[in-house]
Amino acid sequence: MSNNTWKSVGNGHLESFGLPSIADLDPSKLIITLTDSPKPLPNPENLVFGTTMSDHMLVASFDPVDGWSAPEIKPYGPLSLDPASTCFQYAANIFEGMKAHLRPDGTPILFRPEMNVARLGRSADRLALPPFNPNALLELIRKLVALDKTWIPTAAGCSLYIRPTLIGTRPALGVGASDRALLYVILSPSGPYFRKGPTSISLLAATQNVRAWPGGTGAHKVAGNYAPGFLPQLEAAKLGYDQVLWLLKETGEDAKKKGGWRVTEAGAMNIFVVLSREDGDLDIVTPSLDGTILPGVTRDSVLHLCKAHTDKSKKLSLPGIPPTQKLYTHEITFTIADMFDWLAQHRLLEAFAVGTAAVVAPVGKIGFMDHPSDSKSKKEKVRPIIGETAQELAKETARNGIRDIILPSYEAGMGPVSFAVRDTIVRIQEGQAEWDGWGVPCL
Amino acid sequence: MSNNTWKSVGNGHLESFGLPSIADLDPSKLIITLTDSPKPLPNPENLVFGTTMSDHMLVASFDPVDGWSAPEIKPYGPLSLDPASTCFQYAANIFEGMKAHLRPDGTPILFRPEMNVARLGRSADRLALPPFNPNALLELIRKLVALDKTWIPTAAGCSLYIRPTLIGTRPALGVGASDRALLYVILSPSGPYFRKGPTSISLLAATQNVRAWPGGTGAHKVAGNYAPGFLPQLEAAKLGYDQVLWLLKETGEDAKKKGGWRVTEAGAMNIFVVLSREDGDLDIVTPSLDGTILPGVTRDSVLHLCKAHTDKSKKLSLPGIPPTQKLYTHEITFTIADMFDWLAQHRLLEAFAVGTAAVVAPVGKIGFMDHPSDSKSKKEKVRPIIGETAQELAKETARNGIRDIILPSYEAGMGPVSFAVRDTIVRIQEGQAEWDGWGVPCL
Repeated sequence: MSNNTWKSVGNGHLESFGLPSIADLDPSKLIITLTDSPKPLPNPENLVFGTTMSDHMLVASFDPVDGWSAPEIKPYGPLSLDPASTCFQYAANIFEGMKAHLRPDGTPILFRPEMNVARLGRSADRLALPPFNPNALLELIRKLVALDKTWIPTAAGCSLYIRPTLIGTRPALGVGASDRALLYVILSPSGPYFRKGPTSISLLAATQNVRAWPGGTGAHKVAGNYAPGFLPQLEAAKLGYDQVLWLLKETGEDAKKKGGWRVTEAGAMNIFVVLSREDGDLDIVTPSLDGTILPGVTRDSVLHLCKAHTDKSKKLSLPGIPPTQKLYTHEITFTIADMFDWLAQHRLLEAFAVGTAAVVAPVGKIGFMDHPSDSKSKKEKVRPIIGETAQELAKETARNGIRDIILPSYEAGMGPVSFAVRDTIVRIQEGQAEWDGWGVPCL
Repeated sequence: MSNNTWKSVGNGHLESFGLPSIADLDPSKLIITLTDSPKPLPNPENLVFGTTMSDHMLVASFDPVDGWSAPEIKPYGPLSLDPASTCFQYAANIFEGMKAHLRPDGTPILFRPEMNVARLGRSADRLALPPFNPNALLELIRKLVALDKTWIPTAAGCSLYIRPTLIGTRPALGVGASDRALLYVILSPSGPYFRKGPTSISLLAATQNVRAWPGGTGAHKVAGNYAPGFLPQLEAAKLGYDQVLWLLKETGEDAKKKGGWRVTEAGAMNIFVVLSREDGDLDIVTPSLDGTILPGVTRDSVLHLCKAHTDKSKKLSLPGIPPTQKLYTHEITFTIADMFDWLAQHRLLEAFAVGTAAVVAPVGKIGFMDHPSDSKSKKEKVRPIIGETAQELAKETARNGIRDIILPSYEAGMGPVSFAVRDTIVRIQEGQAEWDGWGVPCL
């Protein structure tokens, strides 16, 4: 372990541990204790996401005197923690979501896992949790997945979901950084996201509750970002919507010009919008990483693939998208008013949410509580340019004070861009295609 | 238990449990298991806040089929929880802070505890945690404190700190409300906040990190509000400041007028400013409860006592404050620019932070990173009106790009209003005085 490795994930907090004189996370010290009562493998058909766990988990603990303990793979089981621990009291908890699939040759592979362990390192910094060598964590995850490889479901659309978690375990009530922590990784076999073929999700825009804010933790995968979304999610469900579309009130000089509310995320996913252009190419729009947006691995992959399709030197052509059609990616700030403008201009072709669990989930409807400031759609008369496969134009409906944007429906269950990026990512994840070192085997 | 009691703390989430057909928290079902190895009582002189726990804790669990389990008082010990639990993954965790003292007759008393259990109920609603009867929780807390009353330190300034905690325990990774929970209460004997007589704290204003925002959870005591403050706290400490002064960027129409950054909280405490008036009375200013501010019990008590001093029908006179001097309370939005204006106008007499742990902590210095928009102090020439006991005027100093407001120093270690409200609250807490039913005995 080099000093540089520490610094790459460290911050001021690191200094207080007197690093690097104490032990880093070290895969060579791994202790493996196998279960003596393996559980029966589940039927993937019946799996509810995140409820079934594999036989083993990885655990390592940090204390400020010795640093990281020898990591241990041991039978899955409960954690025993002091009731005063920082993880319960002040939510110094962070996590990651990854997936393993079986390559056609039977080797487990991970999808761009170096992005997840690096993000976990950044999340640790943000909550002043102990730093760790992210490469060491990745090596340990690969060993754990290889050990429990029989838990990777092979049925179509199934995977082994991986949940690395780091929690503060300082057993004291004073409000301050946790100098003790527990790192663990658990594995959950998961069924297909779409059980009956692709179906679109509906989103209800939230203005009463805000997920993240400049100066907050929206750009990090911290546990505390999620529980405040439970109640808005229940309220959206009551009104018949699947997920919340998170917004952020525009401030500063653009506030009047942009009108109202920025679009930020959808449920626990990033969001994309596909817009037609007069030249026949497409604009692929997603919120920029302004500190309120999680820098998702799937988000990054979608942007990368759209760019690669457009850059002929990359020799990648997305399935179903004409090789001559360019996909122009835009990481920008956009608002509800922009969405209604795009609708009025007949430019709105697709919207989709992306994340590790769903990969790509097409959005069929977006409901907004009516805001006068968002109603100033320009209603410009423009020539409608829609994709050839769309069955109808996007349109607007209203009921009970909610204005709905109804996205075009497609015979395939999702639009051509949604389908193309989803299909390409899944094929790379499953090892049926290779791209840029994205598939990392667990040997 | 009446249906109304449920509704008083319930929300839409409650309906999904099919209440009130399942069991509420019921003190009559309490099971008590005493420790067979009592720990030695600590020397209050050596206590570090929140690190020593008493012999027993209260525990009750909720599941969606049976509701609340029979509550149990049992020996203090670790919790055993599934690694996938919502408390670790998504921080569906809330808590309260309370204190018990021994009244001169030896009876343990709590300070306005009904405010804490009601706030815990509101916090549970906000994070979609199971509801509970707050009166039942209070009754159980009183029983626990009475049982461990020997753990209440009797030395001056000491108390037994009480930490009710409610955490989500659904053992599943799907992002959504926790339909299982664990409620527990732990007790920690605490030494005096000021070990060597009153000393003032210094605050560094934070503009890179924001504690709470409109639509967030700042008005609730949720665990996830705290860990994001650890790193800013470490950064403030590096620059020689004790705590962070949390700010919120002004938005909307007042933004230009008010200039820059609202003052919101100090560390994990509410904040007050005392201003002189030309008529010789005082203005007592604290941020209004706009949804970003925790509605603190001490905050409410300070406001109440200042009003009672001014309202002669209340027959309360704060010690050291002339009975004829009126204390006008103002729950308003104010900014850093306002603070510099008050400084320039020689109106700034005192600032103090309030919370259960410290009660009242005088503020001696507030540092701001220099912002052009905050420098537009009006520099009006006004007659300085300061309290008679202040040793010097408030003043401004600057170094390393930080502008410091230096509050007046006082021979007593804190200003007359800080002292008066602190002394009055502590005397009520210790049962040396009675006021409005604020002291609640644990019999």
